[in-house]
Amino acid sequence: MVTKLALLGAGRIGKVHARAIATDPRAELVAVVDASPTAAEAIATVAGCPVTTMDAVLADAGVDAVVICTPTNTHADLIERFAKAGKAIFCEKPIDLDVERAKACLEVVRQTGAKVMLGFNRRFDPHFQALRAEIDKGTIGDVEMVTIISRDPGPPPVDYIKVSGGLFRDMTIHDFDMARFLLGEEIVQVIATASVLVDTAIGEAGDFDSASVILMTESGRHATISNSRRATYGYDQRIEVHGTLGSVAAENQRPVSIEVATRAGYSRPPLHDFFMTRYMQAYAAEIAAFIDALEQGKAPSPGAEDGLIALRLADAALRSVKSGTAVRVD
Amino acid sequence: MVTKLALLGAGRIGKVHARAIATDPRAELVAVVDASPTAAEAIATVAGCPVTTMDAVLADAGVDAVVICTPTNTHADLIERFAKAGKAIFCEKPIDLDVERAKACLEVVRQTGAKVMLGFNRRFDPHFQALRAEIDKGTIGDVEMVTIISRDPGPPPVDYIKVSGGLFRDMTIHDFDMARFLLGEEIVQVIATASVLVDTAIGEAGDFDSASVILMTESGRHATISNSRRATYGYDQRIEVHGTLGSVAAENQRPVSIEVATRAGYSRPPLHDFFMTRYMQAYAAEIAAFIDALEQGKAPSPGAEDGLIALRLADAALRSVKSGTAVRVD
Amino acid sequence: MVTKLALLGAGRIGKVHARAIATDPRAELVAVVDASPTAAEAIATVAGCPVTTMDAVLADAGVDAVVICTPTNTHADLIERFAKAGKAIFCEKPIDLDVERAKACLEVVRQTGAKVMLGFNRRFDPHFQALRAEIDKGTIGDVEMVTIISRDPGPPPVDYIKVSGGLFRDMTIHDFDMARFLLGEEIVQVIATASVLVDTAIGEAGDFDSASVILMTESGRHATISNSRRATYGYDQRIEVHGTLGSVAAENQRPVSIEVATRAGYSRPPLHDFFMTRYMQAYAAEIAAFIDALEQGKAPSPGAEDGLIALRLADAALRSVKSGTAVRVD
Amino acid sequence: MVTKLALLGAGRIGKVHARAIATDPRAELVAVVDASPTAAEAIATVAGCPVTTMDAVLADAGVDAVVICTPTNTHADLIERFAKAGKAIFCEKPIDLDVERAKACLEVVRQTGAKVMLGFNRRFDPHFQALRAEIDKGTIGDVEMVTIISRDPGPPPVDYIKVSGGLFRDMTIHDFDMARFLLGEEIVQVIATASVLVDTAIGEAGDFDSASVILMTESGRHATISNSRRATYGYDQRIEVHGTLGSVAAENQRPVSIEVATRAGYSRPPLHDFFMTRYMQAYAAEIAAFIDALEQGKAPSPGAEDGLIALRLADAALRSVKSGTAVRVD
Repeated sequence: MVTKLALLGAGRIGKVHARAIATDPRAELVAVVDASPTAAEAIATVAGCPVTTMDAVLADAGVDAVVICTPTNTHADLIERFAKAGKAIFCEKPIDLDVERAKACLEVVRQTGAKVMLGFNRRFDPHFQALRAEIDKGTIGDVEMVTIISRDPGPPPVDYIKVSGGLFRDMTIHDFDMARFLLGEEIVQVIATASVLVDTAIGEAGDFDSASVILMTESGRHATISNSRRATYGYDQRIEVHGTLGSVAAENQRPVSIEVATRAGYSRPPLHDFFMTRYMQAYAAEIAAFIDALEQGKAPSPGAEDGLIALRLADAALRSVKSGTAVRVD
Repeated sequence: MVTKLALLGAGRIGKVHARAIATDPRAELVAVVDASPTAAEAIATVAGCPVTTMDAVLADAGVDAVVICTPTNTHADLIERFAKAGKAIFCEKPIDLDVERAKACLEVVRQTGAKVMLGFNRRFDPHFQALRAEIDKGTIGDVEMVTIISRDPGPPPVDYIKVSGGLFRDMTIHDFDMARFLLGEEIVQVIATASVLVDTAIGEAGDFDSASVILMTESGRHATISNSRRATYGYDQRIEVHGTLGSVAAENQRPVSIEVATRAGYSRPPLHDFFMTRYMQAYAAEIAAFIDALEQGKAPSPGAEDGLIALRLADAALRSVKSGTAVRVD
Repeated sequence: MVTKLALLGAGRIGKVHARAIATDPRAELVAVVDASPTAAEAIATVAGCPVTTMDAVLADAGVDAVVICTPTNTHADLIERFAKAGKAIFCEKPIDLDVERAKACLEVVRQTGAKVMLGFNRRFDPHFQALRAEIDKGTIGDVEMVTIISRDPGPPPVDYIKVSGGLFRDMTIHDFDMARFLLGEEIVQVIATASVLVDTAIGEAGDFDSASVILMTESGRHATISNSRRATYGYDQRIEVHGTLGSVAAENQRPVSIEVATRAGYSRPPLHDFFMTRYMQAYAAEIAAFIDALEQGKAPSPGAEDGLIALRLADAALRSVKSGTAVRVD
Repeated sequence: MVTKLALLGAGRIGKVHARAIATDPRAELVAVVDASPTAAEAIATVAGCPVTTMDAVLADAGVDAVVICTPTNTHADLIERFAKAGKAIFCEKPIDLDVERAKACLEVVRQTGAKVMLGFNRRFDPHFQALRAEIDKGTIGDVEMVTIISRDPGPPPVDYIKVSGGLFRDMTIHDFDMARFLLGEEIVQVIATASVLVDTAIGEAGDFDSASVILMTESGRHATISNSRRATYGYDQRIEVHGTLGSVAAENQRPVSIEVATRAGYSRPPLHDFFMTRYMQAYAAEIAAFIDALEQGKAPSPGAEDGLIALRLADAALRSVKSGTAVRVD
């Protein structure tokens, strides 16, 4: 049986998901919707499926699931509408930038019993999956400390910063989710500091570009996150988990692994410089996991609840920066 | 304009090329031929094209090029037939196990002016391409010594060994081609030693499973090749080029790059254990390069001539082992 | 001219310094003092110098400098006595566990104008020195974030914990000093969390064995410190400095650098498992720097003031853990 | 009991051994001999021992052993004289550049029963020792192939080349000995090629500066050696041993292990650029092993016989280059 999907939103990330669907023999893209007909057509032509409208998808019994790649401020509404229409839903993170709105959306998801998966793609990166597999195998014993270094190659335009929800809700949110994925216990306390070191325009827009965060669980496990909107050497994405019996680390990734030795020393090329190439395998594996869950009748994971928790951690981090105190999370 | 290709041979490597063609928007698979209808159907169904016969492909003006993935002993015949029919040809290595037969085939290629590309896929591996790019940029100055370590995860079945043409024509031939690709000068002398260390059955079949080779160019550049049919830790494929100004090395590849630290020390997972996963990107880039050449009306590279030269080096290596002397190659 | 030194304290670290003095042709050990005659004799015999008393050293015009390796609670008294006697002083860290006592001692140092160097040996590790050299050369631009991972192979005995002053004053104090050494600006704010994950007896003694710390400078530079009293894989000592133009990292050190590849993957031996072998070169370079300063008539660095600042940061960290707030440091 | 040694030859390598003796509490330097009184005095003053003559050392019953660091052409004579005088002998390699002279010297050693150790210092490098330890533990199963890459930072002066005995007897001889140390079987066949790529003056002096060598044992084990008199990136000394169950490799060594990441990529400093810093630990461990053997009344290893075998392999390599054939060694 083939799962039939409609793509809502035909931008950059929509294209990535369309390609993942095209290469999965268990999935078929049957409709594309976008405010821009040109963008929708570009994907629909390759997929060999029609461009259509939200309403048409809602009404189409032939659509099993939707993949929501529209702007953030439409996510909660679309989740609610398609949940009520009985469709399975894959939605890019976040549900919403506002915790109360996200909670209301989650309530609808619960009532409808809709299957919702949230696009925390990093959980599907093969290297981070391997970290988790080692933890699950018991190789490093009980987890004690997670260290996440997460730096973008460069800052986004300030116009984006203004609608992004800020560093913690836009960028660190991935790291909050990874910390949860690896800590093995819920986080109960957040301490964060942040500053503007990269671009003063980001500060003028009310945001930060550099942050350090400490998360704690009830039993005293720690996670530290180090964020920057700048890393000249590429997309810096390292995670290390330290436990009672040892440690496991996922290294940075580069497109080409050669080493040059000259009078000046030994050198290797920079890292991937773009999240889409760095996480290419993760995006494909993520859609495959969504199809897996639907085929097996299971709740996809990470779900809407995981999205809400990460958002709360982001809000707590922001409060901690402003108050200079540790913030308790329930 | 889309290049229309027929696939001749629907086995393991045929499937790899069919997939590469499917993901290249400039190429279209229009026919599949195989002695086994089941194998041909399997590929044809996915590609949405008909299963047909050699004769039908020969006669079909709608076919621009053929991709020859049939058994080795049919390569020379097929190249000749399709060259005469005016088709462009991509053929898996080798042209033939016999140098004289390969020379005769090359003569036909020359007379017909057919565009022929030979499947030395490693030239298209992004890491080895990066080696070559550094050489071309002058980073390491003039090339002096190429070091190739090339070891298979495990030996093939002895039945395969018997029809393979032997270690040098079957396995080392890739390394001979890589040495030529990187030395920047033609090889004029071959010295080789070989022994049976892995499987006595290979020795009983008249072949070797372990070899060391030294190649020399006219100006005194060296290349060394170390081959084994066994490497417990995966598919060991390392190349290093040493020059007047420095050195450049391509490292081994593994599917997942994590590192575990415990009381026992630090450990990383084994390498890729199969040539198809190790060289997945190379196979795709190889077909893309073939299409590039056809689109631009250029001779594809590596060509049939490169196949003949590599075969001669293999023969020279075998003669060197048997005679215990350096063998001159013209 | 040879600098004549007396060693005060002939324990483990005293032996290390005696060896460093023996191999420096500009230095000569002329006296050893210790409460244990056996310990003093052991070093004196090798050095070919007499065992004597504190008072004798104080009165001996032939002693240029003292090396204080006695228990922590004697440091401040000894610094004061020998400062007043006009001797140059090398003293193991800390000056004292109590900030007020350390301040009083510093006042005596100021009044006497004594040359005092404090044993923050890590500043002299060749790898960390190389970090600092890259920063000074401008390779990474302006420093933005320092990341320190510092983990001991295993916890000390609880009896030691009780007199150690606690994790921050005993262990993290080195990391506070390294953060200062690399940040290029004074630290103005400390946030810390700590827990007991390794040994409950440490908790019962009122201390912690795991800690995460964020330090901030006035301009918004960050340093994070991750501490644990346990690391099964050896003495984990990594430092990374991220700046506007790039990043520089000092890797862990192991006694032997081989790599084994088997069916199970690739493995390397554990790290050094003892601070004395890990920092062997640093201890020698530290004494050499002390001699350098004396020869050139310069103030040795790090000085007593650096010891006081590190101690204040330790106290601030402890207050931060207890209050759950960021603590301002002046 | 302390072993009393006389140093014969107070040049560069003599100084290294004098230092090793000074730091070993079981050894004492009691005399220094050199044609240059200044050189001898420099070492003698530091060691606190007299400068004397060969004859005086020969006659001195208080001298247990001599360390021969004089020019190569004096080695065989001195070994014979001191063997007859009943002294234990540590001699820098080689015994002599001429195989017949070396054989005659060995005959004297046999007749006198003198304890002779030859200075193949690399056997005592901790990293290469660790390779051997893994082989002995069975980690990689039976040895199949040894790969040695051995390149000097730069060529020596041509005047040195002229008296050196040539590349194989001067430089490769260390690699021949390492191959024997690791192969676990005697070498029975040598194939070598060599060329002049670095400095034409070396060619004019009748020598080579670049060589590739294949060694074979009776059971078919291989070793390959790649030599160059030039490596811009430092002293390149890598060894890898491949066996039935896996592989073990010793990596290159650098004085400082930091990594810098910038827009240009990741870079690490060059390697050690001098054999004395690269093999500093090996030189100390070598003298310690000599003292060990004397204390325990055992034959020191490697012995004079090992020196003769390595020299024969060097001669065989030269004959192989000249004849273009494999050369059998008995």
